[in-house]
Amino acid sequence: MNDQSRTILNERSKKMRAASFDREETIEKIMNAFWEHGYEATSIQVLEAATGLKRQSLYNAFGNKDAMFELASNRYDMAVSRKLFATLDHADPVIALREFFAAQLAVLVDADQPAGCFVAGGQQELANRSEGQLSEQMRAMIEEQHDQLVAAFERWKADGKIADETDTHALSAIVMALVRGQAVLGRSSLSYPIIEQSAALAPGLIERYLAAPT
Amino acid sequence: MNDQSRTILNERSKKMRAASFDREETIEKIMNAFWEHGYEATSIQVLEAATGLKRQSLYNAFGNKDAMFELASNRYDMAVSRKLFATLDHADPVIALREFFAAQLAVLVDADQPAGCFVAGGQQELANRSEGQLSEQMRAMIEEQHDQLVAAFERWKADGKIADETDTHALSAIVMALVRGQAVLGRSSLSYPIIEQSAALAPGLIERYLAAPT
Repeated sequence: MNDQSRTILNERSKKMRAASFDREETIEKIMNAFWEHGYEATSIQVLEAATGLKRQSLYNAFGNKDAMFELASNRYDMAVSRKLFATLDHADPVIALREFFAAQLAVLVDADQPAGCFVAGGQQELANRSEGQLSEQMRAMIEEQHDQLVAAFERWKADGKIADETDTHALSAIVMALVRGQAVLGRSSLSYPIIEQSAALAPGLIERYLAAPT
Repeated sequence: MNDQSRTILNERSKKMRAASFDREETIEKIMNAFWEHGYEATSIQVLEAATGLKRQSLYNAFGNKDAMFELASNRYDMAVSRKLFATLDHADPVIALREFFAAQLAVLVDADQPAGCFVAGGQQELANRSEGQLSEQMRAMIEEQHDQLVAAFERWKADGKIADETDTHALSAIVMALVRGQAVLGRSSLSYPIIEQSAALAPGLIERYLAAPT
């Protein structure tokens, strides 16, 4: 490779890095717009204002509104949901749930982020629709997250941390309902005390299901 | 009063009854449209289709979309929320909460009604908006319902049913979060088992806060 072709490749790779950075930043802006305003209220005008890009640039780069919502949903899943559910990896169920609800609380009361939770909003607005890829995706996310909770409770049970007779599905259902409800309440900062109090009390609710110390 | 004027009055009163019956029925249809589709997705076209009335008749009878949403919200409050919260009147907290979560479940899995909960939808879509009467109303409803729960737990505490050291605000926060979360999960009938299991387990979660038998 001569110097000239090396220079050209370097320039090209710099441009690609710059384009890929802008793309990531723009996806984050799109995510924040849907998160704040919801699926329906996020018109293409709202997306233009949020990203500073013209609609044709948005369509060219990302596809239509539904494609942008799907990208935003995947970004939220990577940036927020996975971090939240990773707290369940802890060996101690009470510590894990304490970290889980603390992480959820941190997202909800963060003034630098939109109000509430992207997933709760998407499920409220879309999970009842009989047609559409996004509705499927919103319904599937409920099941996936519930399954992750069940897997964690099953692991704690297998490790002797949770009593054998515990209904892991029912406990997971309680945690799922709490998390989704906190997300809706988090749309109003007036309700932050309610979220804080429920986050503080929730881990203790499972204490009666802990295995007796041996 | 002569026979003729009596006949005229009877006819007028029949018409008024007919008009008032239609009005109530129409408000119910408006409520169901907002409940199913949400605030944003319920356009005036959706309301025309739901009620079988032309937009001008709707505007003349009820005012603009926001006025119709407010009427719908008040109707939901009377028809659903008040019945739900009336279960808290029971003297025994475990029975009360069992009836409370059973009533909530009955609303959510009723195939003859729209999916989820009108209030949860309204709060998800509107409680984050800084301006507007409806947003105010959605925020206020969270506080009102939480206050009703606190009042019930305080009453049970005063009656010696709940242990003195119990944090009634925190327990109320747990119940609020559960109810709102179940409502979001209820947008997908796939998630009914999650709602059923959380509804069955929830009343038992407060058992550790019951006063010791004397």
